[in-house]
Amino acid sequence: MSGMTVEERPAAQGDGAPARGQARRRIVSNELLECSARLFARQGFANTSFQDIADAMGISRPALYHYVSNKEELLTALVRDVLERVVEILEDAKARTDLAEDARIELALRGIVINNAGNTTRFRLLDRSEPDLPAEIAELHRQARRRVLALLTGLIEDAIAAGKLRPLPARTVALGMLGMANWVAWWYRLEADGAPENMADVLVDMAMTGIRRADDRTVAPGPWPALQLLKEDLAHLESAMRTAEQPSPPDPA
Amino acid sequence: MSGMTVEERPAAQGDGAPARGQARRRIVSNELLECSARLFARQGFANTSFQDIADAMGISRPALYHYVSNKEELLTALVRDVLERVVEILEDAKARTDLAEDARIELALRGIVINNAGNTTRFRLLDRSEPDLPAEIAELHRQARRRVLALLTGLIEDAIAAGKLRPLPARTVALGMLGMANWVAWWYRLEADGAPENMADVLVDMAMTGIRRADDRTVAPGPWPALQLLKEDLAHLESAMRTAEQPSPPDPA
Repeated sequence: MSGMTVEERPAAQGDGAPARGQARRRIVSNELLECSARLFARQGFANTSFQDIADAMGISRPALYHYVSNKEELLTALVRDVLERVVEILEDAKARTDLAEDARIELALRGIVINNAGNTTRFRLLDRSEPDLPAEIAELHRQARRRVLALLTGLIEDAIAAGKLRPLPARTVALGMLGMANWVAWWYRLEADGAPENMADVLVDMAMTGIRRADDRTVAPGPWPALQLLKEDLAHLESAMRTAEQPSPPDPA
Repeated sequence: MSGMTVEERPAAQGDGAPARGQARRRIVSNELLECSARLFARQGFANTSFQDIADAMGISRPALYHYVSNKEELLTALVRDVLERVVEILEDAKARTDLAEDARIELALRGIVINNAGNTTRFRLLDRSEPDLPAEIAELHRQARRRVLALLTGLIEDAIAAGKLRPLPARTVALGMLGMANWVAWWYRLEADGAPENMADVLVDMAMTGIRRADDRTVAPGPWPALQLLKEDLAHLESAMRTAEQPSPPDPA
């Protein structure tokens, strides 16, 4: 399943002008989505007017009508966007039958964490705007959520059956993982947490080590796992030395 | 830190009637909090009137004024309630110097998961009502959140320094754990997930196994044992590289 829409396909040669027009429209639309997500998240969907969105975009109301007809349309696009991308990541991972069962989960979890780190506003908005969703969008949202949970639970069940993971309740494990991944939308900050990829490394490591069978936890053969161990223990030495070097606090008296 | 208020202290002997009155008042107040949390979460704080709350409680507006003077007071009590309980759980765990460093984290995480499973409505409300919080309550909320993160990060740093956990970035691990624990408020259902204690078992097992050092690799605190570990890793890498350098097996084609 590809995330590419018809619009995003490279234009045929000699077809430059319309392609540029489409690209411009796509960029503005994305800016518009981001901007309305921020407004909805900050002041609530109900308290945000179409005029507020136009003002925040620095365009007139009639110009805004060129892109969307009402704010419900924006909310719908945002809701669809956030969860459908996660469904896609999970379906892509499921299709990777060239990978071991646990590696598919690892791939999916990493993808979801990185995706969420790049969509924090939209993700929080999604939760916050639940009471404001029109009925059919709320239903779409619920379906997508159920699909996310079913896909991840399925991947975990496969890996348990293949003897790669400990036989823990798959639903609870899936929800624990989604919790780690989704919470990223609430707390991720580049300055404090580093690049999304590095943060994803830590969370994926933590989650996968937590559920793998013990025999998979013994160091794998070959120089790369040995080097990984060395890096871990270097970091440990570093923190131990830092603790040992700290000057004792001055006497309170 | 005790959660007991003056009102909740046991009445002096022979003082039965006022004690019963206080107990009644406390029970109604909790019902009132639960009821308003549900309304705020479902229809939004801004869209909930004082009359809605009275209606949902099945009492008159004047009777409701007996307990609280406005809906902001209810929201404040709810916000204070949810996060202060989590701060308490973490402070209690920190004080348990009779336990090993990793066992303190385990205790705290289990407590938070079980607490969240019992307060799902209030917890979701807390996030959803953020734009509606009066400034000083929003500040209280931010402080409590920072305190939760600082306490858990501190517990993790202690356990890493003591050689109980792998030296992963403590902030990211803390946030991953809080993600697992907090997400419970969004998805926990008794019928699907079993008793809160059983669900907590699974999540705590998953999180702690994910970050613990393998048993045979537990090391004493301080830089010298860390250096010793590093030497072992170097020897291991050396032998792994020697094995890898041996003539490769015949081409599979």
